[in-house]
Amino acid sequence: MASQNSGQGANDHLIISSDPKHPANLIPQLCRKFWTLGWVTGTGGGTSIRENDLVYLAPSGVQKELMEPEDIYVLELSKQVDPKQRVYLRSPPNLKPSQCTPLFIAAFTKRNAGCCIHTHSQWAVLVTLLLESAPSNTNLFEINNIEQIKGFGKGYQKLGNLGYHDTLRIPVIENTPHEEDLTESLEEAMDKYPDTYAVLVRRHGVYVWGETVHKAKTQCESLDYLFQLAVEMKKLGISWLSDIQ
Amino acid sequence: MASQNSGQGANDHLIISSDPKHPANLIPQLCRKFWTLGWVTGTGGGTSIRENDLVYLAPSGVQKELMEPEDIYVLELSKQVDPKQRVYLRSPPNLKPSQCTPLFIAAFTKRNAGCCIHTHSQWAVLVTLLLESAPSNTNLFEINNIEQIKGFGKGYQKLGNLGYHDTLRIPVIENTPHEEDLTESLEEAMDKYPDTYAVLVRRHGVYVWGETVHKAKTQCESLDYLFQLAVEMKKLGISWLSDIQ
Amino acid sequence: MASQNSGQGANDHLIISSDPKHPANLIPQLCRKFWTLGWVTGTGGGTSIRENDLVYLAPSGVQKELMEPEDIYVLELSKQVDPKQRVYLRSPPNLKPSQCTPLFIAAFTKRNAGCCIHTHSQWAVLVTLLLESAPSNTNLFEINNIEQIKGFGKGYQKLGNLGYHDTLRIPVIENTPHEEDLTESLEEAMDKYPDTYAVLVRRHGVYVWGETVHKAKTQCESLDYLFQLAVEMKKLGISWLSDIQ
Amino acid sequence: MASQNSGQGANDHLIISSDPKHPANLIPQLCRKFWTLGWVTGTGGGTSIRENDLVYLAPSGVQKELMEPEDIYVLELSKQVDPKQRVYLRSPPNLKPSQCTPLFIAAFTKRNAGCCIHTHSQWAVLVTLLLESAPSNTNLFEINNIEQIKGFGKGYQKLGNLGYHDTLRIPVIENTPHEEDLTESLEEAMDKYPDTYAVLVRRHGVYVWGETVHKAKTQCESLDYLFQLAVEMKKLGISWLSDIQ
Repeated sequence: MASQNSGQGANDHLIISSDPKHPANLIPQLCRKFWTLGWVTGTGGGTSIRENDLVYLAPSGVQKELMEPEDIYVLELSKQVDPKQRVYLRSPPNLKPSQCTPLFIAAFTKRNAGCCIHTHSQWAVLVTLLLESAPSNTNLFEINNIEQIKGFGKGYQKLGNLGYHDTLRIPVIENTPHEEDLTESLEEAMDKYPDTYAVLVRRHGVYVWGETVHKAKTQCESLDYLFQLAVEMKKLGISWLSDIQ
Repeated sequence: MASQNSGQGANDHLIISSDPKHPANLIPQLCRKFWTLGWVTGTGGGTSIRENDLVYLAPSGVQKELMEPEDIYVLELSKQVDPKQRVYLRSPPNLKPSQCTPLFIAAFTKRNAGCCIHTHSQWAVLVTLLLESAPSNTNLFEINNIEQIKGFGKGYQKLGNLGYHDTLRIPVIENTPHEEDLTESLEEAMDKYPDTYAVLVRRHGVYVWGETVHKAKTQCESLDYLFQLAVEMKKLGISWLSDIQ
Repeated sequence: MASQNSGQGANDHLIISSDPKHPANLIPQLCRKFWTLGWVTGTGGGTSIRENDLVYLAPSGVQKELMEPEDIYVLELSKQVDPKQRVYLRSPPNLKPSQCTPLFIAAFTKRNAGCCIHTHSQWAVLVTLLLESAPSNTNLFEINNIEQIKGFGKGYQKLGNLGYHDTLRIPVIENTPHEEDLTESLEEAMDKYPDTYAVLVRRHGVYVWGETVHKAKTQCESLDYLFQLAVEMKKLGISWLSDIQ
Repeated sequence: MASQNSGQGANDHLIISSDPKHPANLIPQLCRKFWTLGWVTGTGGGTSIRENDLVYLAPSGVQKELMEPEDIYVLELSKQVDPKQRVYLRSPPNLKPSQCTPLFIAAFTKRNAGCCIHTHSQWAVLVTLLLESAPSNTNLFEINNIEQIKGFGKGYQKLGNLGYHDTLRIPVIENTPHEEDLTESLEEAMDKYPDTYAVLVRRHGVYVWGETVHKAKTQCESLDYLFQLAVEMKKLGISWLSDIQ
């Protein structure tokens, strides 16, 4: 478990800013929005923003629509040698760090992401359940020929976005009892699908990232849109892949 | 029926506070949120907070999204000897106490809860309807291997939360024409399932509680999420229990 | 068609008040809420409040979430001798009176209602469509043994509300090309079902009223809840009537 | 691609106004509303207003609920000779013009529209998917005998609105990899269905216009209502056309 080593109140200057775009202001603002979307119900889900070497994190177990800047954790990315021994530059008193932290860090270090969002969206969970009971590859969500697919970048260090006819592929990893234990399989999925901006977690939700807050958030919205559409398509007997060219 | 013994305007100091976290301010704030979630439509549902020996209650028959602190009832828990003869420390003029009162009191006295929420959520009602027409045990909602289950405590006076593989079990009691008459079967369900934080009421809704407002609310959100997911799973032919370990 | 006889700007004092509960303030406030509920999409639906002999009406063809007090029509109920020759005490410049006006007036005169709400809720429309394709009585929506039914009064000039085991019955009338032409069949439905507080209009929506704004609104919410529940029950193969006693 | 020829900051007076109904204020306000309706998720969709010869446009790739007047493009309609060489009177720094621009211009020039809205509404997409798998005409959405149909004008340069028994017909065009390439088939659909106020784009969304902002918006709302209703009708086995007269 991560420790809250910092003295309480230490380094509060890291989370106090009058700029609404400062990560410590932006995370609560995003979380309020995500709560209304049903993405972070009942303290589920989370959000993290990286600015250069500093990582800002929503804490564990809080009501996301009521978060305030003073609830934010801060750590230095380059100093995180041992994931079991995370040292926080700034820790909010009386809170616990999120178990999602190593997963967010994976997106920052392996994909140079600037923001990572974790939702418990029911549409994401339903897609993983539908894949689970599918006859063939159950570890990959695939959809094509839907305009909203163009909301995704082509991949890590590639320019431009997916095209209408491209197939969007999101890998699915199996859930584990402890969220931190997802880290290894999440990193494996990143290695196997180097261009993906998201990984679904079976019966759990989804991790979505992007080079910037803007990209992470809009990709997360587009993906949730596609998950919802996919569930409705299934109800109506329409397949997710088509051979339109 | 409970009586409004207090002189009108008596003990108004109990519900006047500039602290947004005072129960008399918090209940209207929660009810506004619950109204947008569809939990307290058309004056249905209710919420109560206990602080030490004082119990704060939303009244009967009000538009929940328009509630104000002056609409709140207050009673002393230790003085409620005869449930048919409830004495209120503070009663709002021109309102009636909620029929949910003895059910809230059961959560406070039998489970030491700090907050109890009653919703008419359609997802809760649909789950009880689906169970009613099920071939086997129709008085127990069971679901496992869904991450959101971790949003529930292990049970009364136990530390920690349920794990991913644990099965969440919510008992269902039959509805009665008068809500007060649910008290006995609710207490029986609490005795039979001592670790549950919620009881479903067939064709009616759900009661959810917690040691604190935070826990009651987030458990209620997580449960509603699971009820909605369960209805969607049923539509898609996916079973609520699986043997993943 | 109703005429806008009043000079423009005449009798503006009827719709100017600093009291948020004045009908001219309340109608826009209600309409904003109804818009978010999907009840008055695309200028559909409407709302009217009666205070003693004065009737306040939302106009035709406006964006309901943008309505202002100055958009409100006012007429004197006792002076409406010929429904084809309605005289308005106050008419907003550049607007047209709602075609719902004679239907609202029927609720006021035949049922002494204080408020009448007309929605285009999709749940209401779907219920009328499901009844249309039902084998037996297609002109009556019936549901029982659902707690939310207790949100309805027993009927015109009767005390108290429906009980849990009572069957809520809402008559359905056929739609007509011109909304005003619904008046006769609406009045017939009121005569045939003297205790109803609502009439469904096939492929169109619902009219709901009550002795007060509070009752009309909360009955409309409860009914919409029941319509939505009924559609979901149909999808899940659960019947609307059961013989639980 | 359209070019951003104007010097940055040039002609900012075109988008600065204290009037909330100025197009540069109205577009962000509309987009915020559309975001909550799920019409412009993840930077999808767009909106444009024409006032006389000036066209105001939301830019490409922005979070629609966060748009500000300074993000608005302005161009002169009469000066748009070559659609490949669009010249903007005013261009926001660091943004790109929307690929929807030639489609909006088609509505302005061929139909004299005052406003055009493009949504990625899932209901629109699902309707095009349902039509795609239908046995007969898959390029036309048709529905009749639903009251909300009266929310549409009879057609270009015609007075009055559709009646209850009239059939609303919305043509469907096939999607293309580049949104600009839809222009030709959109214009063809306008020619083939001269009275339509909307064109569906398969697996993509819908374009809706009107003589004024009011008409475009309320027609877009009514259409989205009908698309959602149509999807629910399909789930319940109810056909979109009926022979009620």
